[in-house]
Amino acid sequence: MANSVDPLTEKHNKIMKRRKAFMDHKIQKATGSKGLLLVNTGDGKGKSSSAFGMVVRALGHDMKVAVVQFIKGAMETGEERFFNRFPDDIIFKAMGEGFTWDTQDRARDIEICEVAWSQAKSFLQDDSIDLVVLDELNVALSYQYLAFDVIRKDIETRCEGQHVIVTGRGAPEELIEMADTVTEMTLVKHAFDKGIQAQAGIEL
Amino acid sequence: MANSVDPLTEKHNKIMKRRKAFMDHKIQKATGSKGLLLVNTGDGKGKSSSAFGMVVRALGHDMKVAVVQFIKGAMETGEERFFNRFPDDIIFKAMGEGFTWDTQDRARDIEICEVAWSQAKSFLQDDSIDLVVLDELNVALSYQYLAFDVIRKDIETRCEGQHVIVTGRGAPEELIEMADTVTEMTLVKHAFDKGIQAQAGIEL
Repeated sequence: MANSVDPLTEKHNKIMKRRKAFMDHKIQKATGSKGLLLVNTGDGKGKSSSAFGMVVRALGHDMKVAVVQFIKGAMETGEERFFNRFPDDIIFKAMGEGFTWDTQDRARDIEICEVAWSQAKSFLQDDSIDLVVLDELNVALSYQYLAFDVIRKDIETRCEGQHVIVTGRGAPEELIEMADTVTEMTLVKHAFDKGIQAQAGIEL
Repeated sequence: MANSVDPLTEKHNKIMKRRKAFMDHKIQKATGSKGLLLVNTGDGKGKSSSAFGMVVRALGHDMKVAVVQFIKGAMETGEERFFNRFPDDIIFKAMGEGFTWDTQDRARDIEICEVAWSQAKSFLQDDSIDLVVLDELNVALSYQYLAFDVIRKDIETRCEGQHVIVTGRGAPEELIEMADTVTEMTLVKHAFDKGIQAQAGIEL
């Protein structure tokens, strides 16, 4: 009975075969190639972390990366400390000054965002950079610290083939329309709500 | 009129003040400290990337990290290539052999997952390791390649203070119940569906 297959295995093999055919077809069809605009938004965790994970992937492919942080950045994060070890591969610009509810000054926030955007724009026009991460830009956009039309134009006219990742909750609808890939991170549950403080190395 | 404030700024300041009070209160209340179990699930992108972003953060805090990949891993990814530059800080074990619809062999998949789990278990019992990433474990669990009760016991009895991140679509309900923080990544749209092929350095 060497060839007998149990029903669970048989069912599984059928499903996998169908899925493989579907994926092969999709992969065959997907032949376009271009610089992507990716957006990570939503109230859940992982929007910035996911972007930094993609930075790691890009660095593993010997790509050159630039990061502009729009809102966070008053305190040096673990990511910044780590990436600063590779100044030839990644430029990390923390332009924000803490969360807006800590600064309590709209005029100053706008000024900081505008300086951060000039920095971002110079990366978008630098063809030695393969991936630009605009961390927490969505927050700056949703507070109207920056005019969306300016941002759109600068992203649309960026260097050919350059990838851009935009993170932050509250991505404006127009940005979602522009984007190639959009992921929404949804909070299912959070340790913080159970009274567990943010853990260094994991959440800070 | 140096002190006059426009209505938009005034409204914004009020909202920010209220938000700051709320956050301060929450931070004050959250004093617990423990090793966290984090789960990234859902059909969207960024589940593994987000975990790798947290790895970067942990490395920036001089933590020691171990990664076990359960399903992917037939081809060396950018992440693996990059993290392999730091063998003293991170141990990266790619145990899977490609997606299951490529292998088409349930018995072999189970065997591979069991070997991967022994590896994972040894990390969970190693108190020199601060963070263990169990990448795509959810997929192995949802196909019942591994028994959930075994996994639960080994995670629950891991070293004190050790953080664990589990990724992959289809996280079982019991794992979500066990977890401290759960994020669901939802696909809003994907370049692949527009016929753009996966881009090396961004998606591979």
